[in-house]
Amino acid sequence: MELNYIEHIGIAVKDMDAAIKFYEEVLGLKCYSIEEVADQKVRTAFFKIGQTKIELLESTAPDGPIGKFIEKRGEGIHHMAFAVNNLEDQLADAESKGVNLIDKKPRKGAEGLDIAFLHPKSTNGVLTELCENKG
Amino acid sequence: MELNYIEHIGIAVKDMDAAIKFYEEVLGLKCYSIEEVADQKVRTAFFKIGQTKIELLESTAPDGPIGKFIEKRGEGIHHMAFAVNNLEDQLADAESKGVNLIDKKPRKGAEGLDIAFLHPKSTNGVLTELCENKG
Repeated sequence: MELNYIEHIGIAVKDMDAAIKFYEEVLGLKCYSIEEVADQKVRTAFFKIGQTKIELLESTAPDGPIGKFIEKRGEGIHHMAFAVNNLEDQLADAESKGVNLIDKKPRKGAEGLDIAFLHPKSTNGVLTELCENKG
Repeated sequence: MELNYIEHIGIAVKDMDAAIKFYEEVLGLKCYSIEEVADQKVRTAFFKIGQTKIELLESTAPDGPIGKFIEKRGEGIHHMAFAVNNLEDQLADAESKGVNLIDKKPRKGAEGLDIAFLHPKSTNGVLTELCENKG
């Protein structure tokens, strides 16, 4: 695989408004976008730091993936995302090397990116996302 | 606070040699350094991707912080580290804004950096490290 840089770090939070306030007033970062991703049952808030984004994730339903994650493990880092070119080729390469894919084909994620997740069982417990910006 | 960029992502692994092999042969990154940090009871391996490093962490003793983390939560992302200037000033600023500090003063971490940790109870469950490179 060819990974370009860390596109974002996804962080599950219980209370988005309080978390945005903490990131802005304590950490000194600036929220530049809030977006709901309906099919993931999640509301996202984005911050930029250097080359990377921080994506806060608040569940919009208890049975969504972030709601379940927080119920099981509490708040904290949920996933790590790498920027790639040619996402379909990267997925094929990963699968050929024995990686278990959550998404066999790219789908649309936040910010209009094409995304796909690799299963954490294949990646040392790290839920790993690949992102391609075709825009 | 003023955070410059994500200096590294720390990932707790059970088997460092297997994890290095995965990072090199599947993810396509290159391990450029292996270092033991005796007082943290940990062995580290570093990879660079864009502006950020990935730091794999393997416990050298069951009662070390990484050993306990894996026992409780399994392998996965352990902490997120930000590069800063003037680490002591950043710690003072964080404390003045109500952040619970694990390290009240900088100490030496891997790669010769001055480091300090913020408590995850203050940071939405994210064990957060600040790093200053005075070298």
